[in-house]
Amino acid sequence: MTDKPLRWGIMGTGGIAGAFAEDLKLTDSGVVAAVGSRTAESAERFADARGVPTRHGSYEALANDPDVDVVYVATPHPMHHGNARLALEAGKPVLVEKPFTMNAEEARDLVALAKERDLFLMEAMWTRFLPHVRHIRELLPSLGDVVTVSADHGQWFAEDSEFRLFAPELGGGALLDLGIYPVSFASMVLGEPDRVAAMATPAFTGVDAQMSMLFGYPGGAQAVLNCTLSAVSPTTAVIVGTDARIEVDGPFYAPASFTLIPREGERVRYEYVDEGRGLRHQADEVARRLAAGETESPLMPLAETVSIMTIMDRVLSAVE
Amino acid sequence: MTDKPLRWGIMGTGGIAGAFAEDLKLTDSGVVAAVGSRTAESAERFADARGVPTRHGSYEALANDPDVDVVYVATPHPMHHGNARLALEAGKPVLVEKPFTMNAEEARDLVALAKERDLFLMEAMWTRFLPHVRHIRELLPSLGDVVTVSADHGQWFAEDSEFRLFAPELGGGALLDLGIYPVSFASMVLGEPDRVAAMATPAFTGVDAQMSMLFGYPGGAQAVLNCTLSAVSPTTAVIVGTDARIEVDGPFYAPASFTLIPREGERVRYEYVDEGRGLRHQADEVARRLAAGETESPLMPLAETVSIMTIMDRVLSAVE
Repeated sequence: MTDKPLRWGIMGTGGIAGAFAEDLKLTDSGVVAAVGSRTAESAERFADARGVPTRHGSYEALANDPDVDVVYVATPHPMHHGNARLALEAGKPVLVEKPFTMNAEEARDLVALAKERDLFLMEAMWTRFLPHVRHIRELLPSLGDVVTVSADHGQWFAEDSEFRLFAPELGGGALLDLGIYPVSFASMVLGEPDRVAAMATPAFTGVDAQMSMLFGYPGGAQAVLNCTLSAVSPTTAVIVGTDARIEVDGPFYAPASFTLIPREGERVRYEYVDEGRGLRHQADEVARRLAAGETESPLMPLAETVSIMTIMDRVLSAVE
Repeated sequence: MTDKPLRWGIMGTGGIAGAFAEDLKLTDSGVVAAVGSRTAESAERFADARGVPTRHGSYEALANDPDVDVVYVATPHPMHHGNARLALEAGKPVLVEKPFTMNAEEARDLVALAKERDLFLMEAMWTRFLPHVRHIRELLPSLGDVVTVSADHGQWFAEDSEFRLFAPELGGGALLDLGIYPVSFASMVLGEPDRVAAMATPAFTGVDAQMSMLFGYPGGAQAVLNCTLSAVSPTTAVIVGTDARIEVDGPFYAPASFTLIPREGERVRYEYVDEGRGLRHQADEVARRLAAGETESPLMPLAETVSIMTIMDRVLSAVE
């Protein structure tokens, strides 16, 4: 255990890197010590805007910075595997932005490396650490048998071939960027499905503009999920059980309120407010686990991260 | 055109027959003139409870009653085809409870017979005639391109092998009884899909306890639908377009309110209240079309009813 805040090194300077740096200011558990980018200019710009003391013109330099306690990989998806390897090989604990990797094979490789080096590793599925989601998990037993999980994530993006979400080489497409949230939510409640069906509509660049998914589970439950880059959907989530259901307000993956609705009896409303974007909770979790000398989080275990990437692989290969 | 209310003959004495008889009292367009059942006792009981003047101990007698202007077929699904044939052959216009028939072949047969006899025929998809649904259809052009339609219908029924929803021989299962509503809703907005995927979980009797469906349309839209007999779901419907979405309160298939949510700008709430169960609107529609000498309704055309039964066939054969 230590009293000093964790010194984070952020790899990448995109939107999520900036949001994480901002939310980290709301915690007592960590500070941004350094940022690394492929170019010195980008690192300087990011650091100047946020008062980050150290800036590196390469990911290697960030990974090897002795004043960095933990690395947050916030680069585009196709780089996660290589960037996380770099940090682990430098002996650093690592938080990897979601989707964790491009496929299950890459995910297994990172997990094996972290175990070999006895280093902490975690997928940055920040939703999992939000107070309303932790509360929902506590309430799951009161739902009876879960019959259906449904969730959607739709945002509208103007068609732009320069934008990473439309770029195949940057891991674009609705599933990897938006679909990861409903898929992870279903995984949290029901685990890994034994049946997967999927249907996709391509964007003008060929990546999936919309991905609709059905998962079937050994116990008979089914998940009904959707994601799209083409329109703003309600972005809600529902867990329907034999005794009660939980309806999570949109956007369910960010700080949100929810309602517990028994099959018979009064509905109960749980209101949640949160500071910032909601990313601070995952930073606190990393700090807690590192302080305890643990190498993964029980709230987002590595075996589940690999399972989720396996499900994503199966969705992509099941597309009709 | 006539000033006299339509004289309805109700074939069958189950729950929906009773609800229709009650709602008919709220209209000026029709009255229940007679009821027919396979047994005189059942017809007497139904008629006594509701003040129905004439009761018949057979469907044939009802179909041939000269004081019946129009027949409403409210028997179990597997009997719809035969019962509707009986009424059409007796020269009566017919309203057939949904699902219209057990499959598309039976539906095409009824449509051909009605056309041959120049008789009115309509599927009793009462949702289609509700004021909020008619308003939603008017608003569809303001949504831009429709990207996603989602809808669900889940009710909880105690496991009971005597209950028709669990009985294969009575056309039980979630799809035919509950799924018809989301399927019809998607059909209303997007027409017939060119791709269908489905996943089912069997009930203890082998009928589908849960059916999850994905439909893909030629224009690139997708529908994400679910129905279950095992739990109470939100039973909402959403139409997501590039410019705006419509969220229909649950239960979307009954009189309901809805919200129009533009991608940018203020949401608009449309509140609807209705008298009775909401079945009176389809009765008024039948009266209007018969008075105008028409043989089908433009709001629920026979070609679409056949298309919907074709979709249902495809769902059942697509089950993984």
